[in-house]
Amino acid sequence: MGNYHTLTQAEAVAYARGIEGVFPVGAQLKSREIGDGNLNHVFHISDPASGRGLILKQALPYVKVVGESVPLTLDRVRIESEALRIQGELCPDQTPKVYAYDPDLALMVMEDLSDHIILRRGLMERGRYPLFAGHIGSFLARMLFFTSDLAMDLQEKKRRVKAFINPELCNITEDLIFDAPYKKSRMNIFEPHIRDAVERIWADKELHLEVALLREVFLTKAQALLHGDLHTDNIFIKLDSAKVIDPEFAYYGPMGFDIGTVIANLLLNYSGQEGWSTDAQGRTEYRRYLLDAVRDLWTQFELQFRELWNGHAADRMAKTRGYQDLYVTRLVQDTIGFAGAKMLCRVYGFIHVADIDHIADAAARERAQRIALEIGAALIKLNRSAQSIEEVLDIALKAAN
Amino acid sequence: MGNYHTLTQAEAVAYARGIEGVFPVGAQLKSREIGDGNLNHVFHISDPASGRGLILKQALPYVKVVGESVPLTLDRVRIESEALRIQGELCPDQTPKVYAYDPDLALMVMEDLSDHIILRRGLMERGRYPLFAGHIGSFLARMLFFTSDLAMDLQEKKRRVKAFINPELCNITEDLIFDAPYKKSRMNIFEPHIRDAVERIWADKELHLEVALLREVFLTKAQALLHGDLHTDNIFIKLDSAKVIDPEFAYYGPMGFDIGTVIANLLLNYSGQEGWSTDAQGRTEYRRYLLDAVRDLWTQFELQFRELWNGHAADRMAKTRGYQDLYVTRLVQDTIGFAGAKMLCRVYGFIHVADIDHIADAAARERAQRIALEIGAALIKLNRSAQSIEEVLDIALKAAN
Repeated sequence: MGNYHTLTQAEAVAYARGIEGVFPVGAQLKSREIGDGNLNHVFHISDPASGRGLILKQALPYVKVVGESVPLTLDRVRIESEALRIQGELCPDQTPKVYAYDPDLALMVMEDLSDHIILRRGLMERGRYPLFAGHIGSFLARMLFFTSDLAMDLQEKKRRVKAFINPELCNITEDLIFDAPYKKSRMNIFEPHIRDAVERIWADKELHLEVALLREVFLTKAQALLHGDLHTDNIFIKLDSAKVIDPEFAYYGPMGFDIGTVIANLLLNYSGQEGWSTDAQGRTEYRRYLLDAVRDLWTQFELQFRELWNGHAADRMAKTRGYQDLYVTRLVQDTIGFAGAKMLCRVYGFIHVADIDHIADAAARERAQRIALEIGAALIKLNRSAQSIEEVLDIALKAAN
Repeated sequence: MGNYHTLTQAEAVAYARGIEGVFPVGAQLKSREIGDGNLNHVFHISDPASGRGLILKQALPYVKVVGESVPLTLDRVRIESEALRIQGELCPDQTPKVYAYDPDLALMVMEDLSDHIILRRGLMERGRYPLFAGHIGSFLARMLFFTSDLAMDLQEKKRRVKAFINPELCNITEDLIFDAPYKKSRMNIFEPHIRDAVERIWADKELHLEVALLREVFLTKAQALLHGDLHTDNIFIKLDSAKVIDPEFAYYGPMGFDIGTVIANLLLNYSGQEGWSTDAQGRTEYRRYLLDAVRDLWTQFELQFRELWNGHAADRMAKTRGYQDLYVTRLVQDTIGFAGAKMLCRVYGFIHVADIDHIADAAARERAQRIALEIGAALIKLNRSAQSIEEVLDIALKAAN
């Protein structure tokens, strides 16, 4: 990394101009920084005349945490680019094109997805995406199946585990999702009006045991190559397309973590529907849409995962009678447990979600927070006993009543 | 590995002479090859005048399988030497001293353990080792605890997982223990008199499901740094000492695999006691000793593992109420399941044990084989429900009656 320096906007534009086949020669390029600058500089560079554009993303050698700058490995760009390469092979329709990867500058140049919107924003605008469950269910089934021991040469899979050992980014997840929310910590940020609910979580020993078990699964179960951070800001959507970006947290972990992260974010939006308090009917209808999306996502995932297993399992032992059913049951359990853990930390942990935080009315925001906490805690407690995704829907319905 | 060549006996002696501080200057060294030459050349080099000696072990770039030479990575010597270094720090009393490690020649020079005997031979001679359970129980507790997420910095543990990715040697285990024994394969070698019992195993779908689950745990659960091949040929013993050698199969896997391997080998000897058929009382007494050793080994392991957990857990979450008990219960389940899998493959798979194969009388040998098969299959089927090591003893008593 000897040649690394953070690019100025002018340098980013010059770099983008050097990418072949995107911009016409002599184009008047415009540039706009679109990231938050906490982890990366992200520039959207475009040519208004031709309508063409691209994204240049450069990793910064630090992360901003509670106002401090903490060093963070630039190796995450290698991991992200390698994960995107695998993702592009397995799920080309859900993967942005990568035009360039520059390890020295820790940057990638990627397809401009300006014709899509960020899924979180889409959900906050009560958008409906009838193809979402199919697209992301397929993405999850293909990524998780084809990178697992079920489909890979067992030796090659181990080499891939090695290539994706990702200690520093896993550490962020381990702290923010599985540790800080269950103790008093300056990494927890919440409004005084929910202190009683947060303190109940801090005192709930039964919950802590289930979190310890989920955390152990996150730490030890090298089941498949995960995206590792599959919330709704990392999914770009339009009616006929969904794209998954930013796999810099990729590592070999439990499949249920990725599926659970998507479901958690649907349910956080479900909780946040309290914010539209003057439109009770619209809220009820959109919540029904979101629960259908949760069910459809799991159903699409399971259907395609089982089809892949039946048609493409490389592994003789995968054909063992009863194994697939047991495997899928443990998957739904992991998924539900991780979904719960993801929900809690996003309500009162270090990084919140706009679906709830952006509710202007304090009473409605508090109701949304309490609904999310109730759902999250209940899901965590189901992680060893759940048999079906329907249990999630029952819990969500009850919490919002 | 550009300078690698297999040493002649004379070159091995010259190499040994160059190790400082072992032999007197000008000593008349004797050399004797003591390995089977399938995987490694192992020379015992000694000076009869001073009584001093050492072991020089050089890895060969192939393994002999069914008469063929299959290439095998020399990187296993790096893994073995690194595992022995960690083992020496955590369990100095159970670890041979390493005088030299030469990556170019893929060789190690180690302490001469001629004052010990191989535990398998000790058991075949009906030796009693009252300190064995304490020594090996402690070895297992310390190695498995201190290399796990319970005791290590979580990031450092991930780097260690990476350093011990060991695809080729894990592949041998995956084939010989978890795959070939459950199908018709030329890797299965058995006498016609037990064909009916082997065919029952090939037809036992319930058993195959449990093996698939155990295999998945072996493939995915990066819980602790395992020895990976802890049978009784890799334990050297005398009344007041036990030493563990040959961790070339080391990798991050499920703790129960190592504990289960030791127990399997005690129970294989237990089965082989049929061979001493003229001495019914001696057989009964020694079997009682072996079952006590199984119980004591687990008890010593559990006691010391819990003590380490209570006193040395680095991880805040490890203190979660109820977590340790659940963890230990799942450990005993993994241990019992893996013990069963280890037993079956050693009766009719590719590599047998002398405890049974060396029984001269065919009828007694057959009885021993059937006892081991009965115990092994029953243990495998306990892998999801066992609650206590006592269940193993009950099964073993019943099988030998």
